[in-house]
Amino acid sequence: MGDVASHPASLEAIRAAAARIAGHAHRTPILTSETLDAMAARRLFFKAEVFQKVGAFKFRGAMNAVSRLADEAAARGVVTHSSGNHAQALALAAKLRGIPAWIVMPKGAPAIKRRAVEGYGATVVECENTLEARESTAARVVAETVGTLIPPFDHPDVIAGQGTMALEILEERPETEAIVVPIGGGGMISGVAIAAKALKPSIRVFAAEPALADDASRSKASGRIEPVERIDTIADGLRTSLGELTFPVVRDLVDEVLLVEEGAIVAAMRLVWERMKVLIEPSAAVGVAAVLDASFKARRGFGPTAVVLCGGNVDLDRLPWQG
Amino acid sequence: MGDVASHPASLEAIRAAAARIAGHAHRTPILTSETLDAMAARRLFFKAEVFQKVGAFKFRGAMNAVSRLADEAAARGVVTHSSGNHAQALALAAKLRGIPAWIVMPKGAPAIKRRAVEGYGATVVECENTLEARESTAARVVAETVGTLIPPFDHPDVIAGQGTMALEILEERPETEAIVVPIGGGGMISGVAIAAKALKPSIRVFAAEPALADDASRSKASGRIEPVERIDTIADGLRTSLGELTFPVVRDLVDEVLLVEEGAIVAAMRLVWERMKVLIEPSAAVGVAAVLDASFKARRGFGPTAVVLCGGNVDLDRLPWQG
Repeated sequence: MGDVASHPASLEAIRAAAARIAGHAHRTPILTSETLDAMAARRLFFKAEVFQKVGAFKFRGAMNAVSRLADEAAARGVVTHSSGNHAQALALAAKLRGIPAWIVMPKGAPAIKRRAVEGYGATVVECENTLEARESTAARVVAETVGTLIPPFDHPDVIAGQGTMALEILEERPETEAIVVPIGGGGMISGVAIAAKALKPSIRVFAAEPALADDASRSKASGRIEPVERIDTIADGLRTSLGELTFPVVRDLVDEVLLVEEGAIVAAMRLVWERMKVLIEPSAAVGVAAVLDASFKARRGFGPTAVVLCGGNVDLDRLPWQG
Repeated sequence: MGDVASHPASLEAIRAAAARIAGHAHRTPILTSETLDAMAARRLFFKAEVFQKVGAFKFRGAMNAVSRLADEAAARGVVTHSSGNHAQALALAAKLRGIPAWIVMPKGAPAIKRRAVEGYGATVVECENTLEARESTAARVVAETVGTLIPPFDHPDVIAGQGTMALEILEERPETEAIVVPIGGGGMISGVAIAAKALKPSIRVFAAEPALADDASRSKASGRIEPVERIDTIADGLRTSLGELTFPVVRDLVDEVLLVEEGAIVAAMRLVWERMKVLIEPSAAVGVAAVLDASFKARRGFGPTAVVLCGGNVDLDRLPWQG
């Protein structure tokens, strides 16, 4: 295990984040399903972050980061580039604090996502659909507004905010022996792993990753950040490489990265919709697919396993099981 | 108000049902949504019966009815005719008691519903798709098996079972001043109205009904059971006329029947999927559409309103907003 001092957050920071976001973020329910328990051959606790504000866990980190700003900095507003759940999360967090937010989005972003961000009162700044254009546009907006850039995952306050879900899981279900967390940039699993391992050193923390975007798996194997090579997984929230802050946590505290195929992701998504009546997005289905995999079912040495249903933002006009 | 003695269940019977089904039925969560509160101009409590076993409130009544059978009668098994949620509910209740169940289903019933019933160990008996064929086939099965017929709604134990949700609503949210319940055969609203009015006489109980299947509205107006005239509403759980037991309760204890158009049902269903991430079926959306209606929004005299999300069994290959 690496040097804990090199990690971007601590249990204390995560506890402080929990106190800070209480009253703003929902304490989401933990759901159970006898049907899925039977299929997984294990007791499962589904942490339903789909019921979090903006429909995803991202609100925890964004709210914590916005709350941590000093009044003077906060008054200048916040900036990010995202077309995903972080965009809505930051827009809402800024609205709740009463400060401006600028969200850089690529021109091709779905209109529904743009409307959601604007609905929270944020200003959308359009750019070309390349990472370079996003970053340079965000840098320009920061320079113009003197606002604070709040990146989607590689930020200590964002990581600490995401970790608060682990406090809730272990408080409500202390018998949890493993946690499965979908991995994209690694913000969620970093916060969860830091909190969970500090509270219960014996707990297993597994990352769940699409086989088509296996950069976290490769990074853990090589010992350095390996970039995502393809962006065609259906799990659109997980098409991101690890960051400078999240990689050391994944390297040191994540027990293993579980890979799942696209077909298993779609099947798990449909299963949760049909049997649990919870509308999860493909990225959330990655964790479900991981615990239903035959190789995971066969594992011994741990029992009750928490699975984070991290988000529920889906285009209802284009479902993955339809032609 | 009519003679309470003429009603098929009492608060005591409903309390006894609650004790009987505890440990079998889920105590379902009550969800809230600031977005929908704002749209309805009222605080809303969503009783999430989609998370009930078999995905619908029907399990409460079926479990209560099966539990009430004496051992000797129970051993002979139970029979019903249904292609809907009651079929699965009775099949599971019978399985939990360890007794046989025969479910009469029309030949055209969706394969997924048939498989669900068979998955609970029940025997499916096919018949032609007319009410006469269903009833005569069920009568034949009862004669052959000497089993007990458990109808989907017009039965005192079924009504008492459905009423248990009202105990939970008023225990958890005693500030509730109105309850909106979708109405088909009237089993759910009968149980809810009996329990709620006994516990809190000032409470309003509203039925929500598709305008295309407005038999409850017409029955309340005429003072007798008026049959459903059309079966083309998308709310397939509500295509049923009131029964001999449920009509007097609707007549005496339901304050009003609210009618909603098909377009409003589909819009409400999609809204709950998108904003609440809960997969409700069209019949459940009827109650949501009712509280979002401009005429309901304008009503004064009551505040916090509970809405029953009664079921979540949907064919995911055929969604109503798709062509």
